Amino acid sequence: MADTLTDIYPVTERNKVRRLHERGRYDHASVHAILDSAMLCHIAYVIDGQPYCTPTVYWREGDHLYWHGSSASRMLRTQKPGVPVCVTVTHLDSLVLARCGFNHSVDYRSVMCFGQAHVIEDPAEKARALDAMIDRLYPGRNATLRPSTALELKATMVIGMEIEQASAKIRTKGVADEEEDYALPIYAARIPVMQVIGAAEPCPRMPNGVAAPEGLSHFVPGRRLDEVMTESSRRTYATEDE
Amino acid sequence: MADTLTDIYPVTERNKVRRLHERGRYDHASVHAILDSAMLCHIAYVIDGQPYCTPTVYWREGDHLYWHGSSASRMLRTQKPGVPVCVTVTHLDSLVLARCGFNHSVDYRSVMCFGQAHVIEDPAEKARALDAMIDRLYPGRNATLRPSTALELKATMVIGMEIEQASAKIRTKGVADEEEDYALPIYAARIPVMQVIGAAEPCPRMPNGVAAPEGLSHFVPGRRLDEVMTESSRRTYATEDE
Repeated sequence: MADTLTDIYPVTERNKVRRLHERGRYDHASVHAILDSAMLCHIAYVIDGQPYCTPTVYWREGDHLYWHGSSASRMLRTQKPGVPVCVTVTHLDSLVLARCGFNHSVDYRSVMCFGQAHVIEDPAEKARALDAMIDRLYPGRNATLRPSTALELKATMVIGMEIEQASAKIRTKGVADEEEDYALPIYAARIPVMQVIGAAEPCPRMPNGVAAPEGLSHFVPGRRLDEVMTESSRRTYATEDE
Repeated sequence: MADTLTDIYPVTERNKVRRLHERGRYDHASVHAILDSAMLCHIAYVIDGQPYCTPTVYWREGDHLYWHGSSASRMLRTQKPGVPVCVTVTHLDSLVLARCGFNHSVDYRSVMCFGQAHVIEDPAEKARALDAMIDRLYPGRNATLRPSTALELKATMVIGMEIEQASAKIRTKGVADEEEDYALPIYAARIPVMQVIGAAEPCPRMPNGVAAPEGLSHFVPGRRLDEVMTESSRRTYATEDE
């Protein structure tokens, strides 16, 4: 299951990076690295010609993305038969203050995935997927939880999508001005941006003696969430990927 | 221009919050507070029935959103005549680890804005908008920059959209389990998530003696980006809003 250097998503008009195309990448390793370092995506879908953009928690297993929601959700109802979606994940990495307006920018890592979203109808597959979501985010956690009830499973809809095409777009170069502008007496800088986690706030209603599980040991206060999520994914999928 | 308590975006099927509707808000103050605390949005648009979801820097002026891009951009070309888009902004505020899979969640603040995106064609209005973008992010910065050239302005496309409808969706409650589950010996916690800025890395090619401008004094290392952006917006638009 590990990505090889030769695995590339097919490039067509749909996923080709046009604007600043030198920032585009199509190899599985680059795309999956971004997908595995986040937990929140934005999903674009269409109802009667109207586009919608919904943020949601997602996870990746091999070449598939999954997310979930209530069966009442507008998005999920329309996706039941399998409809085209675009799933986008973005990390903002820095603000770039240049010497002219035109060269102001941000450093970022983003990925757009295209495919047909469909509802996971099979109850066993659905239950397995929901367990996988918990463990992908919090390795080993599912085994420690009160099991889901039939009612809870019924109230949840799980959506799956094969990644048919994808493209990653990455900017890392910080300040990049016109050569003749560097001598100007203008302040220019890169300001890093990081999404970090804080110290866990244990629920005050826990019985005495319940400790934080070993599977969460990489949730270190102050650590970047993208690193934590990558580590969670590695811990959970290491056996099958390596 | 300040929001009053009675300003509410009209609610129709398009922007009504269905799933967990108690989390929904439609007042201008709630929607604008989220918009003004971020710099990155995700925009959903449709080309030939295919949805796309593109991350980009945006800004708000009154009831309008703006963003920009090269004239080569696929999205912007299709938006030229004015096309329906959905602009979504999301803050992830915490991870919620509950006692069963079903109650796992995240705390978040998000807003979806609906409108017709159109290209700002008038050169003077376009130049003004680009200056406004710089100053909204970095108060007072535009006056310190090397002015834009005609070529730079020509190579940039500015898109504007009136916010016709919007909805905010906010979850802040942390761990919320079934009453009978609290006694179980299961670890439950809220883990805060914050997007923060680091220390500015000045461009090494600046001439000696160029100091960081006063307008950036609120860019304090370690501070939350949402607070910094809100402060930038307040500084830049305070005169007209208050």
